[in-house]
Amino acid sequence: MKRFGMARFSAKIALFSLKKARFRCILINYTFSRTFLETGLGFMDKILQRIHSPEDLRKLTGKELTALPEEIRKRIIDVVSRNGGHLAPNLGTVELTIALHMVFHAPEDKILWDVSHQAYTHKLLTGREDRFDSLRQKGGISGFTKMDESPYDCFGSGHSGTALSAAMGFEVADHLLKKEDRVVAVVGDGALTNGITFEALNNLRSTCRGLILIVNDNKMSIARSTGAISRILNRIITAKLYNRTKSALKYFLRIFPHGENMIGGIQGLENSLKSLLVPGVFFEEMGIRYIGPVNGHNLVDLIRTLRRVKDNDLPVIVHVITEKGRGCKFANEDPELFHGIGKFNPETGELIRSAGAKPTFSAVFGKSLEKLAAQDPKLVTVAAAMAFGCGIPHEFIRKYRERFFDVGIAEEHAIAFAAGLAANGCHPVAAIYATFSQRALDCLFHDVGLQNLPVLLCEDRAGLVEDGPTHHGIYDVSFLRAIPNMSILMPANEDELPMMMEAVLKHPCPAVIRYPKGNSGRPDGDPAPAPIEWGKAAVVREGSDLSFWCAGREIYTALAAADILEKKHGLRAAVVNVRFLKPFDAALFKQYLDKPVITLEDHVKQGGLASIAAELAAGTGCPALISCGWDADEIIPHGSTAKIREEHGFTSEAIAEVVAAKVLSLR
Amino acid sequence: MKRFGMARFSAKIALFSLKKARFRCILINYTFSRTFLETGLGFMDKILQRIHSPEDLRKLTGKELTALPEEIRKRIIDVVSRNGGHLAPNLGTVELTIALHMVFHAPEDKILWDVSHQAYTHKLLTGREDRFDSLRQKGGISGFTKMDESPYDCFGSGHSGTALSAAMGFEVADHLLKKEDRVVAVVGDGALTNGITFEALNNLRSTCRGLILIVNDNKMSIARSTGAISRILNRIITAKLYNRTKSALKYFLRIFPHGENMIGGIQGLENSLKSLLVPGVFFEEMGIRYIGPVNGHNLVDLIRTLRRVKDNDLPVIVHVITEKGRGCKFANEDPELFHGIGKFNPETGELIRSAGAKPTFSAVFGKSLEKLAAQDPKLVTVAAAMAFGCGIPHEFIRKYRERFFDVGIAEEHAIAFAAGLAANGCHPVAAIYATFSQRALDCLFHDVGLQNLPVLLCEDRAGLVEDGPTHHGIYDVSFLRAIPNMSILMPANEDELPMMMEAVLKHPCPAVIRYPKGNSGRPDGDPAPAPIEWGKAAVVREGSDLSFWCAGREIYTALAAADILEKKHGLRAAVVNVRFLKPFDAALFKQYLDKPVITLEDHVKQGGLASIAAELAAGTGCPALISCGWDADEIIPHGSTAKIREEHGFTSEAIAEVVAAKVLSLR
Repeated sequence: MKRFGMARFSAKIALFSLKKARFRCILINYTFSRTFLETGLGFMDKILQRIHSPEDLRKLTGKELTALPEEIRKRIIDVVSRNGGHLAPNLGTVELTIALHMVFHAPEDKILWDVSHQAYTHKLLTGREDRFDSLRQKGGISGFTKMDESPYDCFGSGHSGTALSAAMGFEVADHLLKKEDRVVAVVGDGALTNGITFEALNNLRSTCRGLILIVNDNKMSIARSTGAISRILNRIITAKLYNRTKSALKYFLRIFPHGENMIGGIQGLENSLKSLLVPGVFFEEMGIRYIGPVNGHNLVDLIRTLRRVKDNDLPVIVHVITEKGRGCKFANEDPELFHGIGKFNPETGELIRSAGAKPTFSAVFGKSLEKLAAQDPKLVTVAAAMAFGCGIPHEFIRKYRERFFDVGIAEEHAIAFAAGLAANGCHPVAAIYATFSQRALDCLFHDVGLQNLPVLLCEDRAGLVEDGPTHHGIYDVSFLRAIPNMSILMPANEDELPMMMEAVLKHPCPAVIRYPKGNSGRPDGDPAPAPIEWGKAAVVREGSDLSFWCAGREIYTALAAADILEKKHGLRAAVVNVRFLKPFDAALFKQYLDKPVITLEDHVKQGGLASIAAELAAGTGCPALISCGWDADEIIPHGSTAKIREEHGFTSEAIAEVVAAKVLSLR
Repeated sequence: MKRFGMARFSAKIALFSLKKARFRCILINYTFSRTFLETGLGFMDKILQRIHSPEDLRKLTGKELTALPEEIRKRIIDVVSRNGGHLAPNLGTVELTIALHMVFHAPEDKILWDVSHQAYTHKLLTGREDRFDSLRQKGGISGFTKMDESPYDCFGSGHSGTALSAAMGFEVADHLLKKEDRVVAVVGDGALTNGITFEALNNLRSTCRGLILIVNDNKMSIARSTGAISRILNRIITAKLYNRTKSALKYFLRIFPHGENMIGGIQGLENSLKSLLVPGVFFEEMGIRYIGPVNGHNLVDLIRTLRRVKDNDLPVIVHVITEKGRGCKFANEDPELFHGIGKFNPETGELIRSAGAKPTFSAVFGKSLEKLAAQDPKLVTVAAAMAFGCGIPHEFIRKYRERFFDVGIAEEHAIAFAAGLAANGCHPVAAIYATFSQRALDCLFHDVGLQNLPVLLCEDRAGLVEDGPTHHGIYDVSFLRAIPNMSILMPANEDELPMMMEAVLKHPCPAVIRYPKGNSGRPDGDPAPAPIEWGKAAVVREGSDLSFWCAGREIYTALAAADILEKKHGLRAAVVNVRFLKPFDAALFKQYLDKPVITLEDHVKQGGLASIAAELAAGTGCPALISCGWDADEIIPHGSTAKIREEHGFTSEAIAEVVAAKVLSLR
């Protein structure tokens, strides 16, 4: 039992860090005054406009360089307040990005941004300042790095955890192809909670020579970072105790004559102590040099540190401490809310919501979860760093502390953990965005589906989103439906979501409920849904000339199209809410196969509802099957989803015309 | 630059461990003599038969308990030599399993086996001795733990890395539901290279109280373990240097009067030194108690250690050192070959191969890779602990040391790393089993497909395998075809595989080539394939009454069926080798839609070739579409694939009859 003492010591330090040392040394929480900037910094507004490439950055005077961060922050706040986007993370990386582009010579040197939602400054400094107003707009620049947007974006991203692996690929290629470039990966501390980063770290020393890993530590992985790595980083920052120990030892040795020499005489001790008493021992244990912590808002320190590590020939971690929302009072005070945000008042931070906006699916999920948790003491909620985005309120987390687990950016663990909970009698509900649940597909297959365990995955953001290709939730059904025992449900509106959650908990099985961002857009007066019957679709409009089969809120697209078809073309269309993509209501579907069938889904057709319908319709003599959805081989860009749908003919009007033309041609 | 010294020290220790200390202290390489066992141990043959549950185990005398491991080894070698299976890992865990079942009271206490290919002893001790002869046979017991096989199998597995996460779910459920059980996860050191285990470790301290994690360290993750964690474990085992340093320090302090007291006077130093000079600092840094290393073949030590940790109330890691293939000369000498093995001579270890067996797809892949690597200096190969299984010979690895990377059980990192290689000018080829590539689906989507990077993934074991549900490679196409830019190829025979590899390297794009275990089974005289045209199918037999569309080697199933149809029913069937599942040769396919179409694939129909064909055939008036493949909602068991196919009517004869009935009914 003797060894247990060490853990207690570690625990003590951790406690010390958590309680007292919320790292205030860089939190010189100065209030950013927009008014001040607009008047007092007017003369400097032109610095950014003069920077067309990092080369120009290196021509700035010291004074200009000092003024640049505030100008950049002003620009970012201004554009994000109008276009929406990632505010807090970008305000945190301004100085770091300037320092990186001062020291490294992109695009020859490669800078990879993990997730890349923190790369706005990188965009501003690499020839995209003039297009920055178009951020996240259709046809404008992306909110993430994209290889086809700029040669400075050497690798694209959107999901967390892949930058280090990719950077290692870059570094190995450099070596094999005899290039002299340097490779830098910038990852958040949140990415260190992700398994891919760890798999990469595990291989780093044996694979790479001079790669530089910047850990951008802001204590957040969207939500506050969790887990051991977070504690380790925190402990490093508050390493006073370690440093005190180190100094004390040195002092102790020096009081003896030749004390240091004697130490030197004992083989290995000097090195061992040095190695073991420094903060980065966790990383050093993995064979990676650790440098830090560095104040991520001190440009001089950053540049000095990066110059120091630039030409080293072993992998090195530079631990940079930044502050999410730096320089903007409201973003700094609520970095989770201002992580990714819609339009807001740039002076007050007040969110601009459309008047009378109906509650979102996310909000309905949160409420429903609360109700179910109160009823069912076995219900356990698992989130992966996105509890807030998934609609789980802070009060819920506080209230159900014992039954709520935010595992960090760790979707695979989230699902395997949920499988264990289910196997041992609990009722786990996992809340993950559709696009991120792709990470956990194998765990959904291997740990949940094959074992027929009652894990309920609630997928938010299932469908097109404004963020673009890396975030569209339009691919997952293709694999989910191949998983044995897996049920897949889609509520058509905000009433059906809680009904479906209850239905799944009453019918324990591996299940996914998918719903999109925002609300259903159902019209006023839309009737309350009929009760959920397991595996049964619901006919929401009768019609004998053709039928629309719709996944989720697309019933409203179809109902409007049916109106047009009736009024304009005299065609009576049935509209069916499929409700269950699996088990699919094949019996009902087959009854409609003597007339044209149209499927509607906010998902790729390949592997989605279109495939399900085609499998049942092929060879039956069904006169026509029209599938409306996305094409897997077309990458759907970022920007207003309404505009993208319009361009793709994914509106009630366009669909009605296509359908009318086809149906009438058959007569 | 001062801090860099510490890494060098770590490196030195690592080097020391790798070079000199191949941990001989437990490698008392005693030669297992079957003859001796059969004669000398005859009297003990009955011990195992008397154990119907772990309860019986606890009734054994000390002498019986001592004799039990050899009896178990004998039984395992005997059955595996006849049925095939995982030999080396199971011979390594005999004593560990006995100790676990002595100390913990399953099934109330939960023992979770990661991968669970090392759980044969667990099966023998938990009431399955009498069925052990049926191991891996159709209808017999599985080679893995399965929840529906025994209450002692509290969680099933087959893919590495999920046991700790699931165990954490069990532990939390125990706590919430007020159960008093203990939870133990047994993971190999290879599983520690997997991101999921790390995601779990990162959450362990904050989530769990008394969970016990056994690290079964045999220095192998099928292939030799790689990376930092492996070095850390190795360093712990060869911790002589640490211990020497520790002793030296104590000695040093004692030479001064009151030396220890003085140390004690400096706050934190004593604890700090204790904490930092012990072997498990890496795990302790994560807040997890470390115990070890423990000799995994010393039953007394194991039982003593497990009893010691059983009732602790914090997560603890017990580091157990075992020897793969322990007690069996040939398995011990070549643990990679005898990891998972077919039939062999139990006395000599000689493999029993069918006479005149043709080279497997794996072997052809290895040869082809070698040829391409010789031609193309930019070709880089990435494997994930399965290089040998994927047909990459040891000579290749030695020859192309600079261009070959085994990243461990880390499929996600493998693919993201390959994406980085491709983005920076290399030509990466990743070799992963189809079932394990499911782990990397999101990286294939996010890092490869979306960015249109030329990564070639060669998927071995694509199709049914004897190992059962967790290992069948019959699900991946469903998601792969939803990935933008992704091409999917399937060679019908051993000639087409190298042709396709060349075609992909000449036509750089994200691509997957899928091929099954074994060989194509093509008949003698089968003509050489026509050259590969990108996106074009190949008609291998003309016929005007119907057409078979086949993925991969299923063309031979179809050709034989076509023969029967012609001879028996006078029906002339065309047979088409689709070659490309994506881009699919829709133009050619449409020409056949006026006659019945039959698809054949060794994959689930949902999302496979069946869906592709249905999407094109639906609403066209195609008279019949018959799909032969697996059904996603039926879990296909382990056992002889030939027998399973027969039972499912997946033979030329059965298919011919179904097709004839349908086609003739249409006349």
